[in-house]
Amino acid sequence: MNLRSTAVVDVRLGERSYAIQVGSGVYAALPSYARLPRGSSAVIVSNETVAALYAQPLASALVPLYPKVEIVVVRDGEEFKTWQTLQAIFDGLVDARADRSSTVFALGGGVVGDLAGFAAACYMRGIGYVQVPTTLLAQVDSSVGGKTAINHPSGKNLIGAFHQPLAVVADVDTLATLPRRELVAGLAEVIKYGAIADDAFLSWIEASLPLLLAGDKAALVHAVTTSCRIKAAVVAADERESGPRAVLNFGHTFAHAIETGTGHGTWLHGEAVGCGMAMAAELSLRLGAIDRAHAARITAIVRDAGLPLRAPDLGVARWLDLMRMDKKAAAGALRFVVLEGPGRAAVRTVDPGVVAGTVGAFVEGASDPPRTS
Amino acid sequence: MNLRSTAVVDVRLGERSYAIQVGSGVYAALPSYARLPRGSSAVIVSNETVAALYAQPLASALVPLYPKVEIVVVRDGEEFKTWQTLQAIFDGLVDARADRSSTVFALGGGVVGDLAGFAAACYMRGIGYVQVPTTLLAQVDSSVGGKTAINHPSGKNLIGAFHQPLAVVADVDTLATLPRRELVAGLAEVIKYGAIADDAFLSWIEASLPLLLAGDKAALVHAVTTSCRIKAAVVAADERESGPRAVLNFGHTFAHAIETGTGHGTWLHGEAVGCGMAMAAELSLRLGAIDRAHAARITAIVRDAGLPLRAPDLGVARWLDLMRMDKKAAAGALRFVVLEGPGRAAVRTVDPGVVAGTVGAFVEGASDPPRTS
Repeated sequence: MNLRSTAVVDVRLGERSYAIQVGSGVYAALPSYARLPRGSSAVIVSNETVAALYAQPLASALVPLYPKVEIVVVRDGEEFKTWQTLQAIFDGLVDARADRSSTVFALGGGVVGDLAGFAAACYMRGIGYVQVPTTLLAQVDSSVGGKTAINHPSGKNLIGAFHQPLAVVADVDTLATLPRRELVAGLAEVIKYGAIADDAFLSWIEASLPLLLAGDKAALVHAVTTSCRIKAAVVAADERESGPRAVLNFGHTFAHAIETGTGHGTWLHGEAVGCGMAMAAELSLRLGAIDRAHAARITAIVRDAGLPLRAPDLGVARWLDLMRMDKKAAAGALRFVVLEGPGRAAVRTVDPGVVAGTVGAFVEGASDPPRTS
Repeated sequence: MNLRSTAVVDVRLGERSYAIQVGSGVYAALPSYARLPRGSSAVIVSNETVAALYAQPLASALVPLYPKVEIVVVRDGEEFKTWQTLQAIFDGLVDARADRSSTVFALGGGVVGDLAGFAAACYMRGIGYVQVPTTLLAQVDSSVGGKTAINHPSGKNLIGAFHQPLAVVADVDTLATLPRRELVAGLAEVIKYGAIADDAFLSWIEASLPLLLAGDKAALVHAVTTSCRIKAAVVAADERESGPRAVLNFGHTFAHAIETGTGHGTWLHGEAVGCGMAMAAELSLRLGAIDRAHAARITAIVRDAGLPLRAPDLGVARWLDLMRMDKKAAAGALRFVVLEGPGRAAVRTVDPGVVAGTVGAFVEGASDPPRTS
């Protein structure tokens, strides 16, 4: 396969359409931003860690385009995805005298993207923003689709907005400084796209895991581009998540139970999604929706990516309770994204007994290893 | 003129279209809500004062339509249009186990409408809400148009969202308990609609002020219906306030300076708008856009409604500074909605000298009364 070093993915959402630029060396290059609407200022929102590495090069690229370029730095970590941090961003926008023509640049991972995007959604009832994601997870997932949010003590992402960015600039160079554990976690979502929508891509991932784990730029550009293309098609069909977009939650019902059950921050989101996908493949097998070979293939890819395959032992009752709290759940029923074949998935209501059996096969200390591993 | 006791105004915004029902006895009647999408719960958000009077009758009307009806009560007053109160509403929604199918009912004046509407805009990234405005100001202004917001220490309505309601139910019966000062303040916005868009309506207001001030229900229904019809047409042409909608700010640049300069809460918003309209009429006269008779007519209606005609003496420099902070201002220029004839208005950039002269004619302690009074 011929891999290109840059690519553009169009997200078609009518007047809210935008382009995702994927490449090496693009985030600090003026042409990446030359087509954006001009305005009185650019405000870069980033966290301590990412700002130290990438804020100045981005600012330098923006200086010729905006009369003023300001940088607002927030704390680093999911525990800061709160109203307090959002207020700090609002204060930063006020201090920068941002007006309706200003543009926010979200430079960082999913937390920064969610915070800065939600701040842009609310400031003066909505100003433009650009996602410059610096983690693999953000490049293939949270920076595309316009979902922004903060956490509430009672629920992750409970308070937020649909607010599409003006553009996304995903530079694989920024992945060079990413801790390996986070790179691996990001691969979970890449695998997800292959599993639910594109079996040829899944085969390419299978063959390319060593390159991806070694940080090969051309391989990463292809992985990010293809993932974004799949997500863009799904989002274009269902911008506000009323139906088809739910398949993007493959593995996520199990993953949310793992994250909530163990306390957010113990597992990385991508790690929980990796394990959750293996569990969802097992569930699909038990429902007769896919064959044993396909379930085993999904599990093997998750394992070879370095993602965990053992789920925490929360007790079956707690597992089921946590999954009933999932937003896909309706009136207490358990609903899951189920594989229906290579590159195909759909949402189904599943009998609690089948779910319980699947969970039992994956929890730590289970007498048998998962049947698919 | 034949006045009807109920009327429906359609706000045409494509898939976000909705109906405003205006009448006597409509807010506590089940049919007013029968066409709304059903869901798991209705959550009424109101303030202490309004909840005591109207929450139970509204809840009784909703009980046959929703499996659960909950009431969330917040503090009463503009000073509570803050993030803290918004958080309290989020907590109330969580406690009520509101989900994506739940509907918020904003029962109260502009503060409750802005708070509850913004909470609905953000909860789970947006759920439906219905405005049930109980002040004249809210019935003719804030409950129509989808603008929701909270205040930030640095600016009124600085943080918010455009989020159109599913419906508006404006019941003039609720105006019977409104303090006279607030009824008068609400009339300012009614007068505004006549001045900027409908000279025949302005003449009707002129003739009907005694009826309106006496709380005549048929007159109030006509005033609210016609005001909403004018606002609906303007909003339909410019949902997100990029251009034409700015004419709704007639009198408001002066009014915002009065409110900020005297400290929010000293003048009611409508009182400031009343005085601001007289000032804007004087400004229009000084610009040669209208004749002396028309300016005098606007001023007389403002006076006869019981609205103030003397502006606070903030010093001319402070006046100009405050008006340059207005969101219509661009790059320090002073922009105003100017009358261009009976029922016609447009936005213009105005020379600071003309503005200063206008302000001087209205401030307390000015040696001469305003030329138009």
